[in-house]
Amino acid sequence: MKLVRYGERGAEKPGMLDAEGTLRDLSAHVADIAGDVLSDAGVEKLRGIDPASLPVVEGDPRIGACVGNIGKFLCIGLNYSDHAAETGADIPAHPILFFKANSAIVGPYDDVSMPRGSTHTDWEVELGVVIGTTAKYVSKESALEHVAGYCVVNDVSERHFQTQLTGQWTKGKSCDTFGPTGPWLVTRDEVPDPQTLAMSLNVNGKRMQTGNTATMIFTVAEIIEHLSSLMTLHPGDVITTGTPPGVGMGIKPDPVYLKQGDVMELTIEGLGAQRQTVTEDA
Amino acid sequence: MKLVRYGERGAEKPGMLDAEGTLRDLSAHVADIAGDVLSDAGVEKLRGIDPASLPVVEGDPRIGACVGNIGKFLCIGLNYSDHAAETGADIPAHPILFFKANSAIVGPYDDVSMPRGSTHTDWEVELGVVIGTTAKYVSKESALEHVAGYCVVNDVSERHFQTQLTGQWTKGKSCDTFGPTGPWLVTRDEVPDPQTLAMSLNVNGKRMQTGNTATMIFTVAEIIEHLSSLMTLHPGDVITTGTPPGVGMGIKPDPVYLKQGDVMELTIEGLGAQRQTVTEDA
Repeated sequence: MKLVRYGERGAEKPGMLDAEGTLRDLSAHVADIAGDVLSDAGVEKLRGIDPASLPVVEGDPRIGACVGNIGKFLCIGLNYSDHAAETGADIPAHPILFFKANSAIVGPYDDVSMPRGSTHTDWEVELGVVIGTTAKYVSKESALEHVAGYCVVNDVSERHFQTQLTGQWTKGKSCDTFGPTGPWLVTRDEVPDPQTLAMSLNVNGKRMQTGNTATMIFTVAEIIEHLSSLMTLHPGDVITTGTPPGVGMGIKPDPVYLKQGDVMELTIEGLGAQRQTVTEDA
Repeated sequence: MKLVRYGERGAEKPGMLDAEGTLRDLSAHVADIAGDVLSDAGVEKLRGIDPASLPVVEGDPRIGACVGNIGKFLCIGLNYSDHAAETGADIPAHPILFFKANSAIVGPYDDVSMPRGSTHTDWEVELGVVIGTTAKYVSKESALEHVAGYCVVNDVSERHFQTQLTGQWTKGKSCDTFGPTGPWLVTRDEVPDPQTLAMSLNVNGKRMQTGNTATMIFTVAEIIEHLSSLMTLHPGDVITTGTPPGVGMGIKPDPVYLKQGDVMELTIEGLGAQRQTVTEDA
């Protein structure tokens, strides 16, 4: 299933795509694509609904982030060996974790607005993993059973804020609008192997990132095992799993960063496409 | 006012202390100590209630974190000059920011449980700042107008996870139970100057940390100015502002860490006291 949230920010309604890709309204069945709706039982219940029985959503509503009430937005850094190489970083011994502020989360087609003073805003196409059932001290062998599904994430990053404002990366990752998430939550039954997904990112129609989740240093299952040894993962938590090569800061001889009016287009195989226009905070 | 949340975790009710320190039930007036209840208008409305008109809470309920539905838990590192010295770190040029997972937040008297494999769990008494009204690009001159109030936070930290598991600090800060918050949210009218508050932390009755918010490197107002230049601060966000000297990792010649059965007691002038017993994850 492809689960969707649509409507104004903060007031999104739940929906799903039918076999023809038409958006149908799930409001009569669940309040949101969030929390326990993401459990195996919750997803199974949604699967029992005949999409043809659901009202078609008329018009062309905004699409929101595909998960509501995200508890924590966990981000893995430097998780593709060739991306680590392009940034000059060593291959990490463990998954590198940082958090993106929940207030950065937006829909897949919303504008990405550079904060005041930003001159180094960059793109990162990433596989997002949506937790469906509570995970604590789980093994990699059973880790994927805790996943509700997958989505596209753009881990937008202000490199100067990330590396020059002292210390931790999170400053460059948490600016408002820096977390486009969606368009769909694709349930895990439709993604039998999350380590074989082609991914790409274009800026103004030019291909910048081309990758495949096959080249992750730590697999989705290994990441969940590690994170769940540190803290409980709850339904509705989202883990974004790192980016393949081709970010702006890695371009030789001169890095390239986003500017007002630029358009980013992101795809991951089977998970749909994002498209954002870059703006600037007034 | 001293605002309180009491009851089982995840089902806390709102309350306030009356002039005698008796807990009174606010459920008839607000659903939670959260969100817009924290705005100036929301706090003013609570102030208009005669505490004597509120039901006394009977028995001895658990006290929860003093803010509900915390959006983001922003933590400032190395913000006391002598704590920076004891850890061997340079004085930072800007406030160092990391996030603590919301799933780490617990009440002020809940147990703190060390995760499996933890051998370096440490304490940090800190002044918590609760945002009351949205703040974006605010100046330090007006920053404190966005504060609903203040509370005690124990920024419990696993030093090995924080520094040895590759990269970012957040791994050592986000373990379950590592964010005791409360007991009270003391509204800002009762804290005319947040930079003059004595603070202390005892372990097993022995004084370990003695400090005063007067020695912060970046004041609360400066921190809010800086963070709000990076991202929007929303009502119910909590900022914890760094710890004074006396953490376990700074003890010479040999650092001291927590062990099962230890008792931490924390106080900040005017904000009440916390007390946690240390346990271990099974």
